[in-house]
Amino acid sequence: MTPFIAEILGTAILILLGGGVVANVNLNKTIGQGSDWIVITTGWALAVFAGVVIAGPYSGAHLNPAVTIGLAVGGLFPWADVPTFIAGEFIGAMLGASLVYLMYKDHFDATEDGGAKRAVFCTMPVIPNTFRNMISEIIGTFVLIICVFYFAEASFETEVGSTTKVGLGAIGAIPVSFIVWAIGLSLGGTTGYAINPARDLGPRIVHAILPIKGKIDSGWGYAWIPVVAPLIGAVLAAVVFLTLGK
Amino acid sequence: MTPFIAEILGTAILILLGGGVVANVNLNKTIGQGSDWIVITTGWALAVFAGVVIAGPYSGAHLNPAVTIGLAVGGLFPWADVPTFIAGEFIGAMLGASLVYLMYKDHFDATEDGGAKRAVFCTMPVIPNTFRNMISEIIGTFVLIICVFYFAEASFETEVGSTTKVGLGAIGAIPVSFIVWAIGLSLGGTTGYAINPARDLGPRIVHAILPIKGKIDSGWGYAWIPVVAPLIGAVLAAVVFLTLGK
Amino acid sequence: MTPFIAEILGTAILILLGGGVVANVNLNKTIGQGSDWIVITTGWALAVFAGVVIAGPYSGAHLNPAVTIGLAVGGLFPWADVPTFIAGEFIGAMLGASLVYLMYKDHFDATEDGGAKRAVFCTMPVIPNTFRNMISEIIGTFVLIICVFYFAEASFETEVGSTTKVGLGAIGAIPVSFIVWAIGLSLGGTTGYAINPARDLGPRIVHAILPIKGKIDSGWGYAWIPVVAPLIGAVLAAVVFLTLGK
Amino acid sequence: MTPFIAEILGTAILILLGGGVVANVNLNKTIGQGSDWIVITTGWALAVFAGVVIAGPYSGAHLNPAVTIGLAVGGLFPWADVPTFIAGEFIGAMLGASLVYLMYKDHFDATEDGGAKRAVFCTMPVIPNTFRNMISEIIGTFVLIICVFYFAEASFETEVGSTTKVGLGAIGAIPVSFIVWAIGLSLGGTTGYAINPARDLGPRIVHAILPIKGKIDSGWGYAWIPVVAPLIGAVLAAVVFLTLGK
Repeated sequence: MTPFIAEILGTAILILLGGGVVANVNLNKTIGQGSDWIVITTGWALAVFAGVVIAGPYSGAHLNPAVTIGLAVGGLFPWADVPTFIAGEFIGAMLGASLVYLMYKDHFDATEDGGAKRAVFCTMPVIPNTFRNMISEIIGTFVLIICVFYFAEASFETEVGSTTKVGLGAIGAIPVSFIVWAIGLSLGGTTGYAINPARDLGPRIVHAILPIKGKIDSGWGYAWIPVVAPLIGAVLAAVVFLTLGK
Repeated sequence: MTPFIAEILGTAILILLGGGVVANVNLNKTIGQGSDWIVITTGWALAVFAGVVIAGPYSGAHLNPAVTIGLAVGGLFPWADVPTFIAGEFIGAMLGASLVYLMYKDHFDATEDGGAKRAVFCTMPVIPNTFRNMISEIIGTFVLIICVFYFAEASFETEVGSTTKVGLGAIGAIPVSFIVWAIGLSLGGTTGYAINPARDLGPRIVHAILPIKGKIDSGWGYAWIPVVAPLIGAVLAAVVFLTLGK
Repeated sequence: MTPFIAEILGTAILILLGGGVVANVNLNKTIGQGSDWIVITTGWALAVFAGVVIAGPYSGAHLNPAVTIGLAVGGLFPWADVPTFIAGEFIGAMLGASLVYLMYKDHFDATEDGGAKRAVFCTMPVIPNTFRNMISEIIGTFVLIICVFYFAEASFETEVGSTTKVGLGAIGAIPVSFIVWAIGLSLGGTTGYAINPARDLGPRIVHAILPIKGKIDSGWGYAWIPVVAPLIGAVLAAVVFLTLGK
Repeated sequence: MTPFIAEILGTAILILLGGGVVANVNLNKTIGQGSDWIVITTGWALAVFAGVVIAGPYSGAHLNPAVTIGLAVGGLFPWADVPTFIAGEFIGAMLGASLVYLMYKDHFDATEDGGAKRAVFCTMPVIPNTFRNMISEIIGTFVLIICVFYFAEASFETEVGSTTKVGLGAIGAIPVSFIVWAIGLSLGGTTGYAINPARDLGPRIVHAILPIKGKIDSGWGYAWIPVVAPLIGAVLAAVVFLTLGK
């Protein structure tokens, strides 16, 4: 599997499972309707787990332009590969969001609330405030990327004993999914923790295109924040990483 | 322990624990009655964990005809062993479902709602729709089997350093249980994620046979979907795996 | 640390944390009052985790006479050490239950419901039925002990590559805690999953002795079931293990 | 990264995520408002996970003066480094609490309940009782520190096979986060489990300084307990560890 295909497949599974858990909680007549925040956040954490398990051995499983750019700024990923990765991430995200709609369509049709339906695709802040929403997404992404940097470091050390590195297999995908779980539980309360431009913008475009019954606008006035803020958070994390060093 | 016995024992524990958590949440006068979706999905995920821990070293812990057939199509499991494995899976599933009834019988008797009782055994869609329900089960099973393929790959790589592969022991059962957790949380909202012909049809037969007080029909009109759709999902996953390669 | 001390300390921590989570959910004016079944079951699972982490390297962390006797019947533990281990388990359980009372005393005083207070110490069935309650505790303990057997086997295999066995450290305590999590979620709905004579009888004695404000009887009519049934379950698991073999 | 910086960064992330989850649950108009105790405790557990992942390779990730002093008393950490570590922990805790306020400010403004707002920063007992609250914090911290000691022992053993020790990478942060999860679920019901002087006093000072709209007093009458009691618990754990030995 090429890295490009791996990013598409991994991000598609990430968004299928991530969007899926929101659909299960938000839409009418689903079995999980009205579940607690623990369901949403665990669902997204395990969505990351599944995506990383698939894509990890082939592309390193960025699944997120903020990870790709953050690692490039930090010197751990070649700039030349950035466009391919980001393209794969957006294609995968749009594919995953489309699959959620394909699967939950009858439940979309059974739901009146246009905001609940839009939330399956993309994030919106509870209290709109450009500065504060930016801060939320910057902090959330910063936590994600700084942890990714130090995971990368940790596995670097491990290469000294090369057999043990491989030995963890899919278990190695747990730490990043736990970090995303943490971010959702703790930092997701304001803007819904996009922390990933592809995760938010890709499905938002899908929301705009699909003929969803009774849909509302796609929230384009807010759409730039979960694209720009995660990139700022990622660059900040890279700067901190380069400043503090290993 | 032979692989046949391992599949029986592992699937019996899977269904005992999986059916058990639904009984605990659905039936009257249980301690867990009315619990959140997190309880159901965590229960099923850990049911897979327990089954895999038991059967893993002896049969590879398929516990699911969709896994068996998917791996066979993907060239990672001999076709000659498929009938034995599927037989073991169905026997185990029926055994497990019977144990759930044996244990929770007083609570079955204390429950009026025939649908709640049937749900302990087998799945039914909230919104019946043949095409859409098929899609749900195909997508859910596809995610499971594609992850199993790439787990299998990962452990393949690991064999290069053979001591480390063994070293994980029961920890190695965590990834597949996390994937099932993810599928339940995210993709279980429509049809209840059978994603396993033995898990659904075996207990459905048990439901039909047992003299459950006040039981309703066993939902035979729907019964073919959680058999056929998971097999389609598994074959699709195998095709994708063979196409994309390692 | 001697194995005897390890069993005391590990079981004390098990019961402190396990009884503690019931106190937190059941008693008045606690922060966790009225929490979902997921809190109780996760609390007990992690109580096992903590106890195993402490006692594991010194005694193998049985923390449960059913484990001790099951392993002895299965030939994996010397009969000569059984009395010492069981003594340690009961002492630890009584110590842990006393600490829960010491800590939550003001909340015991603030609670009217004598049944809720007793449940912090020991189990009672929701629907009393000697045969059915026996079945519940036998099945629950069987699942625990059969998994412990196959964990023991797994670590046996691992000793071939001796460095990797040690490498997991405290992570190695996760599987058994996940099994207990599974049992709680799925099989705890009828009798409250004692699955451990020391866990139930030890704290029941403490409940009988302590001058708890407004306490009700200690449920002595039922007390023999969570002692006898887990031992039957453990012996059954040993028989299955010896019959099926590795 | 120096150990001092690592303690600041790790503790800042601990408190950002730990305070964040309380903000998400306690404040008005957040997405997680009113969530169950499982959300709070999982959030804090994963906050520890994230902090340990970052700081672990550089300082051992104490993130808590009770850990620092406990390890020093136990002979596993040099007394000369204690002041630096504690300073880093307090600086980090104050930084993290400030970030929570920066991020959730609009939700602080939208919340009337001054107690709910204060709880984002520091703990208060539900039933004030100096002796009993001391006991709660002593027991909670004792469990944490005794487990840390035996983790330290376990990794000590592992160094015999040095490659495997490194191999776990970020996975190695799971056990301590599970212990904190356990303490929260089981022992957090009375005083809110500070179990860390820096986690409580640092943010309490921030609460006192920040111009939070409609804030109440910072609970200074209670503030000494979550400082003194955790230190007593840590020393007790060290004494037990030294007495019982490895």
